[in-house]
Amino acid sequence: MKKVVLGFSGGLDTSYCVKYLTEEKGYEVHSVIVNTGGFSAEELQEIEKRAYSLGVKSHKTVDAVRSYYDKVIKYLVFGNVLKNNTYPLSVSAERMSQALAIAEYVKETGATAVAHGSTGAGNDQVRFDMIFNIMIPGVEIITPIRDMKLSREEEITYLKGKGVEMNFEKAAYSINKGIWGTSVGGKETLTSNGFLPEEAWPTQLTKNDAEQVTLKFVKGELTGVNDKSFSHPTEAIQYLQTLAGPYAIGRDIHVGDTIIGIKGRVGFEAAAPVVILKAHHALEKHVLTKWQLSWKDQLAQFYGNWMHEGQILDPVMRDIEAYLQNSQEHVTGEVYVTLQPYRFQVTGIQSPYDLMSSKFGKYGEMNNGWSGEDVRGFSKIFGNQTMIWHQVADSVKG
Amino acid sequence: MKKVVLGFSGGLDTSYCVKYLTEEKGYEVHSVIVNTGGFSAEELQEIEKRAYSLGVKSHKTVDAVRSYYDKVIKYLVFGNVLKNNTYPLSVSAERMSQALAIAEYVKETGATAVAHGSTGAGNDQVRFDMIFNIMIPGVEIITPIRDMKLSREEEITYLKGKGVEMNFEKAAYSINKGIWGTSVGGKETLTSNGFLPEEAWPTQLTKNDAEQVTLKFVKGELTGVNDKSFSHPTEAIQYLQTLAGPYAIGRDIHVGDTIIGIKGRVGFEAAAPVVILKAHHALEKHVLTKWQLSWKDQLAQFYGNWMHEGQILDPVMRDIEAYLQNSQEHVTGEVYVTLQPYRFQVTGIQSPYDLMSSKFGKYGEMNNGWSGEDVRGFSKIFGNQTMIWHQVADSVKG
Amino acid sequence: MKKVVLGFSGGLDTSYCVKYLTEEKGYEVHSVIVNTGGFSAEELQEIEKRAYSLGVKSHKTVDAVRSYYDKVIKYLVFGNVLKNNTYPLSVSAERMSQALAIAEYVKETGATAVAHGSTGAGNDQVRFDMIFNIMIPGVEIITPIRDMKLSREEEITYLKGKGVEMNFEKAAYSINKGIWGTSVGGKETLTSNGFLPEEAWPTQLTKNDAEQVTLKFVKGELTGVNDKSFSHPTEAIQYLQTLAGPYAIGRDIHVGDTIIGIKGRVGFEAAAPVVILKAHHALEKHVLTKWQLSWKDQLAQFYGNWMHEGQILDPVMRDIEAYLQNSQEHVTGEVYVTLQPYRFQVTGIQSPYDLMSSKFGKYGEMNNGWSGEDVRGFSKIFGNQTMIWHQVADSVKG
Amino acid sequence: MKKVVLGFSGGLDTSYCVKYLTEEKGYEVHSVIVNTGGFSAEELQEIEKRAYSLGVKSHKTVDAVRSYYDKVIKYLVFGNVLKNNTYPLSVSAERMSQALAIAEYVKETGATAVAHGSTGAGNDQVRFDMIFNIMIPGVEIITPIRDMKLSREEEITYLKGKGVEMNFEKAAYSINKGIWGTSVGGKETLTSNGFLPEEAWPTQLTKNDAEQVTLKFVKGELTGVNDKSFSHPTEAIQYLQTLAGPYAIGRDIHVGDTIIGIKGRVGFEAAAPVVILKAHHALEKHVLTKWQLSWKDQLAQFYGNWMHEGQILDPVMRDIEAYLQNSQEHVTGEVYVTLQPYRFQVTGIQSPYDLMSSKFGKYGEMNNGWSGEDVRGFSKIFGNQTMIWHQVADSVKG
Repeated sequence: MKKVVLGFSGGLDTSYCVKYLTEEKGYEVHSVIVNTGGFSAEELQEIEKRAYSLGVKSHKTVDAVRSYYDKVIKYLVFGNVLKNNTYPLSVSAERMSQALAIAEYVKETGATAVAHGSTGAGNDQVRFDMIFNIMIPGVEIITPIRDMKLSREEEITYLKGKGVEMNFEKAAYSINKGIWGTSVGGKETLTSNGFLPEEAWPTQLTKNDAEQVTLKFVKGELTGVNDKSFSHPTEAIQYLQTLAGPYAIGRDIHVGDTIIGIKGRVGFEAAAPVVILKAHHALEKHVLTKWQLSWKDQLAQFYGNWMHEGQILDPVMRDIEAYLQNSQEHVTGEVYVTLQPYRFQVTGIQSPYDLMSSKFGKYGEMNNGWSGEDVRGFSKIFGNQTMIWHQVADSVKG
Repeated sequence: MKKVVLGFSGGLDTSYCVKYLTEEKGYEVHSVIVNTGGFSAEELQEIEKRAYSLGVKSHKTVDAVRSYYDKVIKYLVFGNVLKNNTYPLSVSAERMSQALAIAEYVKETGATAVAHGSTGAGNDQVRFDMIFNIMIPGVEIITPIRDMKLSREEEITYLKGKGVEMNFEKAAYSINKGIWGTSVGGKETLTSNGFLPEEAWPTQLTKNDAEQVTLKFVKGELTGVNDKSFSHPTEAIQYLQTLAGPYAIGRDIHVGDTIIGIKGRVGFEAAAPVVILKAHHALEKHVLTKWQLSWKDQLAQFYGNWMHEGQILDPVMRDIEAYLQNSQEHVTGEVYVTLQPYRFQVTGIQSPYDLMSSKFGKYGEMNNGWSGEDVRGFSKIFGNQTMIWHQVADSVKG
Repeated sequence: MKKVVLGFSGGLDTSYCVKYLTEEKGYEVHSVIVNTGGFSAEELQEIEKRAYSLGVKSHKTVDAVRSYYDKVIKYLVFGNVLKNNTYPLSVSAERMSQALAIAEYVKETGATAVAHGSTGAGNDQVRFDMIFNIMIPGVEIITPIRDMKLSREEEITYLKGKGVEMNFEKAAYSINKGIWGTSVGGKETLTSNGFLPEEAWPTQLTKNDAEQVTLKFVKGELTGVNDKSFSHPTEAIQYLQTLAGPYAIGRDIHVGDTIIGIKGRVGFEAAAPVVILKAHHALEKHVLTKWQLSWKDQLAQFYGNWMHEGQILDPVMRDIEAYLQNSQEHVTGEVYVTLQPYRFQVTGIQSPYDLMSSKFGKYGEMNNGWSGEDVRGFSKIFGNQTMIWHQVADSVKG
Repeated sequence: MKKVVLGFSGGLDTSYCVKYLTEEKGYEVHSVIVNTGGFSAEELQEIEKRAYSLGVKSHKTVDAVRSYYDKVIKYLVFGNVLKNNTYPLSVSAERMSQALAIAEYVKETGATAVAHGSTGAGNDQVRFDMIFNIMIPGVEIITPIRDMKLSREEEITYLKGKGVEMNFEKAAYSINKGIWGTSVGGKETLTSNGFLPEEAWPTQLTKNDAEQVTLKFVKGELTGVNDKSFSHPTEAIQYLQTLAGPYAIGRDIHVGDTIIGIKGRVGFEAAAPVVILKAHHALEKHVLTKWQLSWKDQLAQFYGNWMHEGQILDPVMRDIEAYLQNSQEHVTGEVYVTLQPYRFQVTGIQSPYDLMSSKFGKYGEMNNGWSGEDVRGFSKIFGNQTMIWHQVADSVKG
């Protein structure tokens, strides 16, 4: 019997896929869910139960939280990646991690086909297709919802006809949760104008008094929060989320370019990710040289965009990671942040590598390392070529 | 008698310069103040009175608000320039405008020397020196405070000895105000850790209820706010400042690289500039293509940094301005913003050039312009080279 | 009757298309050939005759030499574009010009379909498809050779069956000629190792004695060669080609990335283009500032790659063109070149905008504009941040 | 007695420095010469003898050939660095290596001063000053020729007065030789127009018949030439130089921006470096992905420019080196080159990592990995955003 591995979330689309692949196409379906930090143990059990009840041959839960961090999030932090200066790539990055894990599972099971529930309208189809084409070439990729252009209603009718019982009601907001943020889509994000209402956000404001937190970074990685140390940065992220989340921090709407060329908007909340990115960047401003900051920025923007477009397996990404990793050598220290309702403020840093050291001249105060005469000379030479350019231009004008 | 033009602000350093240049060096001093939006008519009159009382031969006030916008701010908006992703270059940009105006005035007066009150510890000395070296080569540049490494106390003693009466008390916070923002320096910004206290901010929070504002852009320039139209964008900026300022929006601390290589921190408040930059960027995300956004970003970051370093006269700046100007062809439309205490939110846009048009496929919904099969083909080709790379790599590994 | 516009070159593939579209598909075929400088008047007449003999309803010759220059080549010169530092984009650029002209003709004729003879293996299919999708959306694109995966033999058999008489012999080398260079493909370019033999090159070495030529540029455009002036740069290019071509200059093999992800190699000869690009760049090195040169380079590399990938209609290309155009303000002067068999040498330039002016300090000679003390101060400040970085790093190491 | 370390070449300037520092300034002079591949053992002995005869307390020869490669040249090869697309940075790179070695020697000797013979007109003064400021802060930097603006004649008069006998005749061409190329300055390079005459080039044409050579690269480093393997890439470079030099290959004139803002021209010959760079790049075009090539290029251009400006110690250089090193993982294979008088041609490559593999589709031939339909879909999606942009633009125009 032909084996297919199916990326399964328990939702309508992938539930349809189980039934369709089993009953219409005669596949032995092996469902797999890759947890990138968005599911609780209970939810994962529920999903497993659902899978078996729909008739899968086997179901597997992959815990990818740490590997997601090690392969993806770490570099997003190193690069201070906010797509279009806004979005921490919550979903885009997660999909990479999920696709990679599914492809690995296809190899393990020896399946000859892999299925995903993507529609033909978004980014995810490209991400899954591409990772599968690259990692498991020759394995057939099946995408029933996309191929048959199925509507929600058609899927429901089919599943009801098969006696499937589940909650077929459409949620007002579609939510995708992971350790690096939660996306929120709804009617307000379908047009160019409109902000999500308060009740649409999964995490509600429950703290009102300002709170100080200290983030500890070692070579660019978050290792501690306040007086707690953690064995893996993912734990630090999750702990910070429990502190910052209740302030309803890190909400925004991302307007971006999809891989397929259309523009899209999506809401997101990402308290811990946004606080970490801003704190990390603040520390970097103190410990990196001007050109280190500048080149990191350029590379990281490309890195983020290319990740967003599903290209994590392009070897250029490894080259950029080597750059980013090397740049973090001195990114060690503490960053102080004040959390407040709906906002936060980085208030300062402390680092042994801080270049704003009083030993070497304070901004705005005279210094022993150089003289006014040195700066006068510097200014002359620093503007020399432009001075010549203007002299030459004037001489031509006459 | 030798003529010197002196950039004059009415503060301790430039007051010292008037006396010193006149009485110790025998110069005829022609003071000039360039208003970039930070001074009221009364303040300018006060400064003029002070200049004459100190003994200048003549005093001139240059109103540079519009030319500052036309030559500098306009392009900072086009480029969404926030240095280190934070600072609208409030002071850096203003200094360019001031130095250019002073150099023009030197030409007009035929002075053989120009003086500025910069110390040897900051950015401004380089900016003034460079612009003067380039624009008025051959004119001697005199910088008494820098050259004699004068302390505040030495200046006061000297001025008191000359019978000068003025307020010699040092303000707790040094403030520099202009149309593109106000900088605030104090003891908290001299070290790497510490945020300015509430009372240090020149503009205090006086509005508490959220307020909607509509910003109207035509080809990238702010031409209207709510139902008001303005004859010049500087008026729109100033009006928006009256709306947004009382929310204490746009406060932050900038950590940056000075031109002379040390790191420095400075507080700033810039309500209108920050709202405009974020609103403008939001509009651009809807009307520009992916690569338009990407290249603008790279060029604008360099543009901002190079401006910060005083290099406005490098012709590369004109080339980049040509790029930025051209990119704004479609940046026309309205942007909706909610103002709240200490924060604001862009909530949407409306533009005839919006690429997120429902006519051409909605994100997350199926579309008539292309099929799932098209995307499947796209994904295959889009990942083709990386697929080959991995096949080749695997074949070598065996 | 359904009208189709067919891009027609007179070769096997497009001859097949005429017959197939007419006889199998019932189309009224309107053939069009766009001359970008590769065809003589005689050749064009021959092609027209062939078209009618195959049964087209109408045939049109578009002379696109000047518009090709105005829309494409001009900017390639401004940007010194050599893809992968080798290839002047001879064919890639030409295809843009041809596709644009064909799309215009489709609009003119009101045809509902457009056909091209591309196979499924190269770049051209993407270029034509894309330009047509963008310029004439809704018009059906027909690609018989690609869609039916036709082999050369199948096409010949079909045409012979239809009584068509033409030279069916395959040339040892496939040649594509235009004003911006001639590509040469053959068995040596199909693998990674092998250079084209002497006889494969369309232009043979016929001059042996070195010859000096002077190229005159006005704002970046070639307006004169030696003592001749021209009314349009295309004439200057063609004249220079008559001088440089017989030296067999500008031959090389380009190894590059196709749009579809595979690597390809192709030989080319492009005497005039390569001489012009190198001469133009030499002039720029004398008249542009350091950062003008640097940013032009980055933008132009992207511009060339994006053009190569068929994206000439992305508005980012207009933005870059605005940059490039502005950068050419001072690129006026003469460039001296020595032509020799198989090679050439730029030997010098003369320009009123030359920044290497003896008035402002000669390299290697002492100067009046600044002192050794100035440079000493410059060096101190220029290395200041790195000095601090090393001090800080050492202090941590202990 | 005060100790000074003097960078000593045996020429007029540094000979002057020995006498001046010893006799006028009362220093104990410790001369040091750093060989970066330009001196023979005999020359080095001669220089040592000269140093002692002028009165140095000690003289040291540092063999820096391998460390020069390991710290500098290796990355120039990885980055295919040709400044302004022409110059392999022969002298610029060498100065870095020399300054670093001299600074190390200052630390070893515990000298409190370091001297170099630079004039105030070129790049070298900045390079030496900066490296010394950074590596040995607090050590006094003495530059007699620059500080006293000495002319050649003044130096000769002084030395003759001290009874020094040496060849005081000025060579028609000043030559600087190292393993990465030889610079040649003369009257032709002092102006913007003029090429060096045949006799000015140190290496004359002595081979006329074309010759094939095979370069073997392992992870980007040259490890073999033809059938010879070498224990260190410097040996391979030197061997290749013996093969390619006699063809008078790699001659050109570099026009560039000095660090101090003026333009300068210098001739150079660099047969082995130029052949290696072009061969290495050719190999990379076959084994790296499109974006790997593109980003390498951008980073390497900055790397070369920043090196040229003496900034090798900026930690951003380490970050870029990490990128470049990582990018070389697959740059292994053979490159075939034909050497001919005054020119050479890369004719092909062979590599296990070649992406132009016939297994995955040949350029210009149909392929099994994807269909024409896939490319049609790709083209639609690839141009989708630009299609929408034009539709929107047209709809506004009406």
